[in-house]
Amino acid sequence: MSRPRTTRDAASWTAFGGDLHLDLGERRAAGSGLRAALEDALRAAVQDGRLAPGTRLPSSRALGEDLGIARNTVVEAYGQLTAEGWLSSRQGSGTTVAGRAAPRPAGRAAGVRAGGRPTGRHDLLAGRPDLSLFPRSAWLASARRALAVAPHEAFDYGSPLGRIELRRALADYLARVRGVRTDPDRLLVCAGFGQGLGLLAAALRERGAGRVAVEAYGLPPQREALRAAGLGLAPLPLDCSGARTELLAELSGAAAGEREGRRRAARPGAERPAAERLGAVLLTPAHQFPTGAALAADRRAAAVQWAREHDGYVIEDDYDGEFRYDRQPLGAMQALDPDRVVYGGTAAKSLAPGLRLAWLALPDDLVEPVARLKARADTMSPVIEQLTFAELITSGRYDRHVRRCRLHYRRRRDRLVAALAERAPRVRVTGIAAGLHAVLELPPGSRPEAESVERARAAGLVLTGLGWYLAGGTPAPDAAPALVVGYATPPEHAFPAALDALCELLRTV
Amino acid sequence: MSRPRTTRDAASWTAFGGDLHLDLGERRAAGSGLRAALEDALRAAVQDGRLAPGTRLPSSRALGEDLGIARNTVVEAYGQLTAEGWLSSRQGSGTTVAGRAAPRPAGRAAGVRAGGRPTGRHDLLAGRPDLSLFPRSAWLASARRALAVAPHEAFDYGSPLGRIELRRALADYLARVRGVRTDPDRLLVCAGFGQGLGLLAAALRERGAGRVAVEAYGLPPQREALRAAGLGLAPLPLDCSGARTELLAELSGAAAGEREGRRRAARPGAERPAAERLGAVLLTPAHQFPTGAALAADRRAAAVQWAREHDGYVIEDDYDGEFRYDRQPLGAMQALDPDRVVYGGTAAKSLAPGLRLAWLALPDDLVEPVARLKARADTMSPVIEQLTFAELITSGRYDRHVRRCRLHYRRRRDRLVAALAERAPRVRVTGIAAGLHAVLELPPGSRPEAESVERARAAGLVLTGLGWYLAGGTPAPDAAPALVVGYATPPEHAFPAALDALCELLRTV
Repeated sequence: MSRPRTTRDAASWTAFGGDLHLDLGERRAAGSGLRAALEDALRAAVQDGRLAPGTRLPSSRALGEDLGIARNTVVEAYGQLTAEGWLSSRQGSGTTVAGRAAPRPAGRAAGVRAGGRPTGRHDLLAGRPDLSLFPRSAWLASARRALAVAPHEAFDYGSPLGRIELRRALADYLARVRGVRTDPDRLLVCAGFGQGLGLLAAALRERGAGRVAVEAYGLPPQREALRAAGLGLAPLPLDCSGARTELLAELSGAAAGEREGRRRAARPGAERPAAERLGAVLLTPAHQFPTGAALAADRRAAAVQWAREHDGYVIEDDYDGEFRYDRQPLGAMQALDPDRVVYGGTAAKSLAPGLRLAWLALPDDLVEPVARLKARADTMSPVIEQLTFAELITSGRYDRHVRRCRLHYRRRRDRLVAALAERAPRVRVTGIAAGLHAVLELPPGSRPEAESVERARAAGLVLTGLGWYLAGGTPAPDAAPALVVGYATPPEHAFPAALDALCELLRTV
Repeated sequence: MSRPRTTRDAASWTAFGGDLHLDLGERRAAGSGLRAALEDALRAAVQDGRLAPGTRLPSSRALGEDLGIARNTVVEAYGQLTAEGWLSSRQGSGTTVAGRAAPRPAGRAAGVRAGGRPTGRHDLLAGRPDLSLFPRSAWLASARRALAVAPHEAFDYGSPLGRIELRRALADYLARVRGVRTDPDRLLVCAGFGQGLGLLAAALRERGAGRVAVEAYGLPPQREALRAAGLGLAPLPLDCSGARTELLAELSGAAAGEREGRRRAARPGAERPAAERLGAVLLTPAHQFPTGAALAADRRAAAVQWAREHDGYVIEDDYDGEFRYDRQPLGAMQALDPDRVVYGGTAAKSLAPGLRLAWLALPDDLVEPVARLKARADTMSPVIEQLTFAELITSGRYDRHVRRCRLHYRRRRDRLVAALAERAPRVRVTGIAAGLHAVLELPPGSRPEAESVERARAAGLVLTGLGWYLAGGTPAPDAAPALVVGYATPPEHAFPAALDALCELLRTV
């Protein structure tokens, strides 16, 4: 085997190619289903090991010729199997059989989140969907339709709010699915909730806000975005009913009191401290990230009440509001007062983070400042993607996709819960009524959290401890060590191995 | 005619539908070309006025049924004619016959550029391509291919530099077409040159730059982006060889001298002035915007020399480098010193501004700071668009598109020059060896520039005077009044009327 392995003469492929040819022969007579037959044959060959991980497949042109079928049929079959995670394709290096433990391509970890992201064999990092579910065919069909009907002016520099077609589609969708009360003129399309939050923070700073209240546990990059805009953070404690928003009035008052005290103490003409007015509270009401609690009704009311009385805003991060499993979804709290609550949503969980599609439903008086800041940063959202997403929504394809994902993730969750109940019964699983992740509380007497995370990493499991999300200060002394597990993250074929490794780890904690 | 005009019973349409049916009948026998026949018939009917502007066409489903052809064929024909500017389509309101003087849809003008953009019947505002040339079919074909081969991880949060596939394709393309010396690890994909410039400005500010030299005439939003990052501006005079970069050393020295003087004058401990170090110069070497000069070789050398000696950078805005008509394109000046010149390019002119695709080739020491600032703003570029553009380049479709556009715009330019020579021979046309716009110098004794711009607007012509681009200060007293005309902007069907209106205006200046 010293001669080069070209795509046509690799031994393993040739043998397989023969088998495949026969399988397709039967279907060809029927005149249809060639692509499905090719997919089935390839899938079976990968599953039963005839095609080993790393095997390079022939080019679509070569295989098409071998089998006497259209090249496009091969391209589509390869695409589908790549989407399902059986094959792996990269420009310039052709299509190969995916390995279970295939290393991630270089470049991926480069610091989207503060500190970058660790890599390992079993990716259970919370906050991402199963990327193999991305609906490539539906997206392409919507792109085709969108490009066929788009007016020329769509390709021009656009409004900083985003395309009107998408804002119309979103206004309808959000009203129907999340109970959001808005209209297209108050929606802003952005490149991620993080960008939206940064713009909001800058707008709040312009109007004199000095601090924003955040949940005691949350995403570090979001806190970083607030700090980068010059805002201070005021952490709100959490309990099983979500953030303790009844403390907001006190937080406002405390700062006012401090300011007052300092002003009295200051010599006339001396430098004033930066404004510390509490301008907003950032909440994840549908499914607290990461602890998983739903914000109770009285807490929602208290937050809105605070905003009204203190000229403040509630920023509602509805990052996974579509994924609730055990009862009716909780409506968005934005509906309580669209003039005081900014609603933020994203396609990062429902479709894919790589799309960079998110949106804010803004109170009237924030539309102009946020849009102006977005225009100044020259970060309008690309038009074809916006029009495609609008078509995906209006055609009903998005609804179908979300339903399919919800079922998929609920099954994943049930498998996680069942496996842990059987193999690590002392671990308490919480926060699982919704979303794509769970919190695993380790039993009393366990190792410290950091040590468990270290052991997980050594076993090839990529996950974090609950402490990674803590907003400053130290956790309560009685806080149990806990791991945050993104059960949606691995592609389907990799989930069983990841679950197995997790259970193995948790047998001894 | 008081009953509602539905799509099926509008008199004008029914009459036309009959004609169309007959036309198609002949081609149907041949079994091919149905779509082309439908397009021809519709195009002819719009051209000769049988289908009046504003007429609503039947839905694709209804017309497909009427004609006994596949609905998709109708969708594609409508799409093509929309792309050519004959029809106008908007989601929710169906397909209508485009009007020559059709008003732009609302929302389009909303402040992408400082102060918004005026609207009128004949859009000759510089800085945009003919949007009807956008290669919808090629884009869709590339999207299909890109989606078929993309690995799952492409849909994850990406590197702030952009997808490696696109950076590889761009590195090759820029080396081949513009002589840029870079590699994929020093390329950064951004949402527009404006975003890239804003990130660069923030990075330069971080390293102590206080001012940036700009060309005496240039895009106001670019100057605004520099100012927003806290930088001062130092305008460089222009002549027919471009910016007078030999003055850069003096500008650096002047500031240093001023600083020194102030420092001597200051009482110890008193507040220092903000740093005023000249950190960079922003240039448009291939085709000065808007005056149109190419930066002479000695001026290029002087700028690079200054950057080396003063730890500064040259920012090369190569906004239309692909469009040079009368001789070989000038290579990018970045090749003179990739460690001192930042190269910036964009797909806004070669494809469409609405894509929000641009790129920077960065010196090594700016890669990390610029990428970090981009990640912090959470403005990664969408993956599908990046992969599609990469495929467009590597497949050769992008080259073909650019060649086609170059021919198209050269013809436009020749028509403009010929028409003005005949109908307004006293107007001097300059800056036309390249690009998508021309500067029309009005003859001695003309009205003041502002008055000519006012008259143009009154005649429905959207354009600006040269003074709109002035970087502060007043123009030289001997500066002739001049208009800047974007001859690429109107779609093909609207160009003759725009040219006619322009000549009519310039007959009397």
